[in-house]
Amino acid sequence: MFLNRVTQLFNITYPIVQAGMIWASGWRLASAVSNAGGLGLIGAGSMNPDVLDEHINKCKTATDKPFGVNLPLLYSGIDKQIDIIIKNNVSIVVTSAGNPSAHTSFLKAHNIKVIHVVSSSRFAKKAEDAGCDAIIAEGFEAGGHNGREETTTMVLLPLVCQAVKIPVIAAGGIATGRQMLAAMILGAEGVQLGSRFVASEEASSHISFKEAVINAKEGDTMLTLKELTPVRMMKNNFFNEIEEAKANHATVQELKELLGKGRARKGMFEGNLNEGELEIGQTSALLKEILPAKQIVERVWQEFNEALQSPLK
Amino acid sequence: MFLNRVTQLFNITYPIVQAGMIWASGWRLASAVSNAGGLGLIGAGSMNPDVLDEHINKCKTATDKPFGVNLPLLYSGIDKQIDIIIKNNVSIVVTSAGNPSAHTSFLKAHNIKVIHVVSSSRFAKKAEDAGCDAIIAEGFEAGGHNGREETTTMVLLPLVCQAVKIPVIAAGGIATGRQMLAAMILGAEGVQLGSRFVASEEASSHISFKEAVINAKEGDTMLTLKELTPVRMMKNNFFNEIEEAKANHATVQELKELLGKGRARKGMFEGNLNEGELEIGQTSALLKEILPAKQIVERVWQEFNEALQSPLK
Repeated sequence: MFLNRVTQLFNITYPIVQAGMIWASGWRLASAVSNAGGLGLIGAGSMNPDVLDEHINKCKTATDKPFGVNLPLLYSGIDKQIDIIIKNNVSIVVTSAGNPSAHTSFLKAHNIKVIHVVSSSRFAKKAEDAGCDAIIAEGFEAGGHNGREETTTMVLLPLVCQAVKIPVIAAGGIATGRQMLAAMILGAEGVQLGSRFVASEEASSHISFKEAVINAKEGDTMLTLKELTPVRMMKNNFFNEIEEAKANHATVQELKELLGKGRARKGMFEGNLNEGELEIGQTSALLKEILPAKQIVERVWQEFNEALQSPLK
Repeated sequence: MFLNRVTQLFNITYPIVQAGMIWASGWRLASAVSNAGGLGLIGAGSMNPDVLDEHINKCKTATDKPFGVNLPLLYSGIDKQIDIIIKNNVSIVVTSAGNPSAHTSFLKAHNIKVIHVVSSSRFAKKAEDAGCDAIIAEGFEAGGHNGREETTTMVLLPLVCQAVKIPVIAAGGIATGRQMLAAMILGAEGVQLGSRFVASEEASSHISFKEAVINAKEGDTMLTLKELTPVRMMKNNFFNEIEEAKANHATVQELKELLGKGRARKGMFEGNLNEGELEIGQTSALLKEILPAKQIVERVWQEFNEALQSPLK
């Protein structure tokens, strides 16, 4: 029985959180992770309120364990999503990509535990001041949207852990039990895995994208679109078009037009590997197979414990 | 008594290597680190053969412990430096920034242990194939010249350790004993610290630069000049000029002219913090004081052992 502030905050068995990723993290993945003893998160970022409502209800049917919702604060329609979350008595919300002071006290007034994703100790302190219960500190190596300061997990964790007293969950570059232990040695009390759970049977990501993830090699992802919002994605035709446009001095407006709408859905959900936006972390280079989420949780936990027993191999 | 393949390869007490950094790593720093039980390296990159000869001889007088020379392979005059190294019976050479197959067998024929610095598992394998005795795997967070794939230490280490059988020494993002343990959990058998030793009394860096390093905050360094050779440096006037030039679509030739000659010397050795190139790693944000090198080695080793005793705090 492993107990720390993260397992106690969420009432879970293992301090392993599954990231609430757009187009990947529906009720199937979230409930499978929660049933396995981790914390599953539904990714609201790719769901309109009706779809979110449906996923929360299906998740409740599929598990009696705690689960949560990841809520990117940058989309319009956030208030309707919050209504759905409160109506359904969801008890855990991870907020990201926005200002935590805008929603945290409202959510907490409804008995919801609020965790905010940050990429710097300055934002970690802001989240703590806003009343958040925990922080997810996400390093440069993570997939998807990312901080401008480009601080990596190895450096970010000690800085964030010095800056705040609330529990810190590490994200970015973590897919194995040894990486989990490394993060916890740096002060984290739990980890959030993204890429690893994209390569799960239950992820709603298109099978072609999952296969691309487990075939990805070192250097196949890159942080780009820094002129808009920095995002780590797989190199593909779309990525090359961005680089070409930048080499030809594209304006921010031209980059926005190139990005267009629905690129992420096209790539990660519809499986258009050429034209879609394929958000994934550097750890994809370590992944070799698509597994059931339960096996991922169990294997990471086992590796973590083996590493704890013999840290220096 | 701590024994592993790295301490045995170098015949040192602690698996802590001091990076052979230009304008910082002269005989004073190298001998102080070696005397403290780590491995000191003289940074030949900023030395002409005569100066290198002088530093090697002074280092020999100052310590009877093993020390080495860091030799960037990209400079002209490399053959003369190698002559000096062989003439003086230096027993350890760390090569970087070039192809290890060009010089490794020649150095090894002179009974020199050769370690090559890499930023990817592909280059690690090449170095192993070239006959190197060990690898230094350096992540994106490291100061100075850096790889194009931008793989961070957290992800690079497991990949490199899977790719090669020779010992791996971790670099990039490591300044404390907890970071050292995290790196060793990921498979490294030793660590190389750069930024931490810039902030030492014995570093030949200008005192103004050392003070800038211990005052640096999160986000104060950035990888730039990717159009030439990627290099992580502190944000200052010079850095801003590069960014401005890039925003104005500067050509590679124009960037080369802006860089000019002697920028690194001007910044790090002469202490011109505005116009000089200030190469330093992300971990500078964690550093708060300038210490004698001996205290740095002892403190990192003590923290490492404390972390090993209670990894989860």
